[in-house]
Amino acid sequence: MCEANAYMVKNGEETLLMESVDLVEPEVDGTFRLVGIFGDQITIKGKIKRMNLVDHRILFEA
Amino acid sequence: MCEANAYMVKNGEETLLMESVDLVEPEVDGTFRLVGIFGDQITIKGKIKRMNLVDHRILFEA
Repeated sequence: MCEANAYMVKNGEETLLMESVDLVEPEVDGTFRLVGIFGDQITIKGKIKRMNLVDHRILFEA
Repeated sequence: MCEANAYMVKNGEETLLMESVDLVEPEVDGTFRLVGIFGDQITIKGKIKRMNLVDHRILFEA
């Protein structure tokens, strides 16, 4: 499986937002909807800083 | 390997932009830099429409 973990980066520190993210979708209000492989969902306020797919990492920043 | 393929979606049709994308990084000018697993790079004008990591798909739209 090729899901990734999503982190928020603040002052150089990473906080795990969600594990096993399958779907990332921007919403009209500027947030991102993240859906996990089990259907769990969260909404992220922030923007994408970097995605490393081979490392399974999605980094957001405020 | 968990790289993905990147597509541009226009009028409901998908055009392959790049295979085996590892890194996706927004640039200051609003474009996205995509780096493949072999180090090849392209720059995309557009925004992210959706990412399906389990399906290895990143969709951009103009």
